[in-house]
Amino acid sequence: MGIESFAKTPNPPYYAVIFTSARTPADNGYEDMAYRMIELVSRQPGFLGVESSRGHNGFGITVSYWASLEDIEAWKAHAEHMVAQEYGKKHWYERYEVRVASVERAYSKPCG
Amino acid sequence: MGIESFAKTPNPPYYAVIFTSARTPADNGYEDMAYRMIELVSRQPGFLGVESSRGHNGFGITVSYWASLEDIEAWKAHAEHMVAQEYGKKHWYERYEVRVASVERAYSKPCG
Repeated sequence: MGIESFAKTPNPPYYAVIFTSARTPADNGYEDMAYRMIELVSRQPGFLGVESSRGHNGFGITVSYWASLEDIEAWKAHAEHMVAQEYGKKHWYERYEVRVASVERAYSKPCG
Repeated sequence: MGIESFAKTPNPPYYAVIFTSARTPADNGYEDMAYRMIELVSRQPGFLGVESSRGHNGFGITVSYWASLEDIEAWKAHAEHMVAQEYGKKHWYERYEVRVASVERAYSKPCG
């Protein structure tokens, strides 16, 4: 599953979780865990897609899309994901911000 | 103004414009225009900040934050920005998606 590309989302309304982060320099198992989380999140109820990008300086943005706030809460509370969140806080991210937002409208090129 | 870093946003509610894009390979004046747009947007009423990241493959995510939907509309309709949008559609972006969203809650490391 390529996450460094466009997600196919339905017409609004739906929800977005905007996760901006600064990575620590070392891998510390990050790549493996990131792969596992993508695998896991893809099977979560209400998951609509994810888009991710990280630049040379380690600053990255990941946006995941969801059908409802309840689906976002369920993913946040998922046992294996909670372990990953704890690791992330301790080892992988110098800093991060999470913003939960309701997508109200969307438009695109070339689709209109 | 470094946009490849964290924006300092107030407590929600506020608005986010999530712009995901695939760049064309050539610069075609992109860097100059991007710089000018950052300069310009920073002076727009209701502008709260912007965060941006682009990976090796040309896929990027830029999120700008705004006080209101009216402020977002005013920036979209700004004359010089409209020229940039037309150029972008023709020369700089193979594809893009724009999503306008209302940020409802936010949390972070290390600030809580």
